[in-house]
Amino acid sequence: MKLASLKNDGRDGRLIVVSRDQAHAVPAEGVAINLLDALQRWDEVAPALRELSERLNCGVVPKAFAFDARHCAAPLPRSPQWLDGSAYLNHGKLMERAFNTPPIPGFDTVPVMYQGASDDFLGPHDDVPLPDEALGIDFEGEFGVVCGPVPMGVSPEDALNCIRLVVQINDWSLRTLGPHEMKTGFGFLQAKPSTSFAPVAVTLDELGTAWRDGRVHMPLKVQWNGERFGEPHGGEMNFHFGQLIAHAARTRRLSAGTIIGSGTVSNVSREAGSACIAERRVIEKIDQGEIRTGFMKFNDHVRMQAMFDDGSAGPFGVIDQRVVKP
Amino acid sequence: MKLASLKNDGRDGRLIVVSRDQAHAVPAEGVAINLLDALQRWDEVAPALRELSERLNCGVVPKAFAFDARHCAAPLPRSPQWLDGSAYLNHGKLMERAFNTPPIPGFDTVPVMYQGASDDFLGPHDDVPLPDEALGIDFEGEFGVVCGPVPMGVSPEDALNCIRLVVQINDWSLRTLGPHEMKTGFGFLQAKPSTSFAPVAVTLDELGTAWRDGRVHMPLKVQWNGERFGEPHGGEMNFHFGQLIAHAARTRRLSAGTIIGSGTVSNVSREAGSACIAERRVIEKIDQGEIRTGFMKFNDHVRMQAMFDDGSAGPFGVIDQRVVKP
Repeated sequence: MKLASLKNDGRDGRLIVVSRDQAHAVPAEGVAINLLDALQRWDEVAPALRELSERLNCGVVPKAFAFDARHCAAPLPRSPQWLDGSAYLNHGKLMERAFNTPPIPGFDTVPVMYQGASDDFLGPHDDVPLPDEALGIDFEGEFGVVCGPVPMGVSPEDALNCIRLVVQINDWSLRTLGPHEMKTGFGFLQAKPSTSFAPVAVTLDELGTAWRDGRVHMPLKVQWNGERFGEPHGGEMNFHFGQLIAHAARTRRLSAGTIIGSGTVSNVSREAGSACIAERRVIEKIDQGEIRTGFMKFNDHVRMQAMFDDGSAGPFGVIDQRVVKP
Repeated sequence: MKLASLKNDGRDGRLIVVSRDQAHAVPAEGVAINLLDALQRWDEVAPALRELSERLNCGVVPKAFAFDARHCAAPLPRSPQWLDGSAYLNHGKLMERAFNTPPIPGFDTVPVMYQGASDDFLGPHDDVPLPDEALGIDFEGEFGVVCGPVPMGVSPEDALNCIRLVVQINDWSLRTLGPHEMKTGFGFLQAKPSTSFAPVAVTLDELGTAWRDGRVHMPLKVQWNGERFGEPHGGEMNFHFGQLIAHAARTRRLSAGTIIGSGTVSNVSREAGSACIAERRVIEKIDQGEIRTGFMKFNDHVRMQAMFDDGSAGPFGVIDQRVVKP
């Protein structure tokens, strides 16, 4: 099933069930007050949500209305926790060259992951206020999973069973701030402003065979100011989501609603293009000897949409945002 | 006023107002369902909470009951955000020597801060389950502030006006995991299991003159297995809390309920002792040529209590916890 959150006066949005074709939606009222509530009582509420979804897909729900992603917040407008991996090693290796940071020990055997802010996510069409163009404004296209409760010390295999939903993410980055924050050893903070999400969170069955081996096997189509930027394929992920969850849960349990990100989708093949500007820049430097592409300016916009391998639109909907002066 | 949260079936606890002498408490029912709710509607609910507090202190509240911190969760059992600084530079310098990490650029002019997990805090008397004694189990005594909403780009001075409450914290650390996570540049994750809080969160007026210059001017008395470990003084903080909040809010707004920590309280004077084991160990190495103190073992316990300068008990109550095998 497909779930989304309409903006309302509250901080957690209003849960709706979206039809398979994303044409219609219906409030989940009476089942769960918001998506976080549903995730905290998943075993209890999932059957009722699924029934609502099936009736909606059959066109027999009286309160159905036309679905408009422009009224959506992030599926979880805030979540108990947001942890972002760097599971596409090609991206990590390029970033080391881009920012001249030392190689990360054990990079290809132990996932790296940072704890991000989860108190204030942006919706798919929200403007993105950032303080200064000079900070190296960059997008980062990713996939992510939303977990149920995860026990401390879970195995990567069991962790896969903790996944409730899959989401599509734009992990905004400020590139001039990142290298200093990496050097402190304390990790990203100012370099990672509020993260954005595509409108629709989906259960694994909505992905069909595109969900396998704990990975999302879909290209992520990225356009910057209307021009093609890349469509790297999610299947090239070096650690699967079960491994990322197990890494996060090694020394503590994770509460329901925890979101784990893949890190920027990135492919070895140059033909795929990129899902972030920093990667294109370092490729320009390597392949052409000089950086030609700048970072984003105010009023620039970025569009991201996962596609199925057959070229049809993916289930998450579209992120389409504009960077603005606050 | 003094606020605390009783454990209940929910994830956010049940807000109570505690008397000045910490002998009695009264439910805040009808005012706010939990502390996060109160923080999100502070201007609206603070007067009613303050009135309840005044009536409780006069002994004229019918529903008052004996306050027992053993039934308390953390004041915020989970919060939208937990950011921990390292504002006692003496601690930072000692940690560089302890873990042989490179000097942090700009360490004395720009605060360092990591984003911690805020989904699952521990109460003051909760057992602390950790997977393995070999991970270098350490406590870290700190002070922290709980914020109202903070706008992006706030000045350090204006940030001080965003402080709603002050708290006392034990920021548990796993010392064998920290150095690797620092080297990745992605910051602490497995090295920082669930953080613990003293039972009582207090408004600034409860601190009297112990709150000045944006700092908590109180010694933090730490005992490990009943023996004196240190009582470093909070006033030696090199960055004040307004500076820490402004640092966190440079590129994004912070939502109400965000907690900002001071980092481990640490004094230049050796007489003060320490608020974490790693610091004592490196001091032993420096002063005596060898490390004599090990890290915590299962069933060890640690007690932390802030005191007023006159030697009387501070307003936060006591953290007294035992490390256990999960």
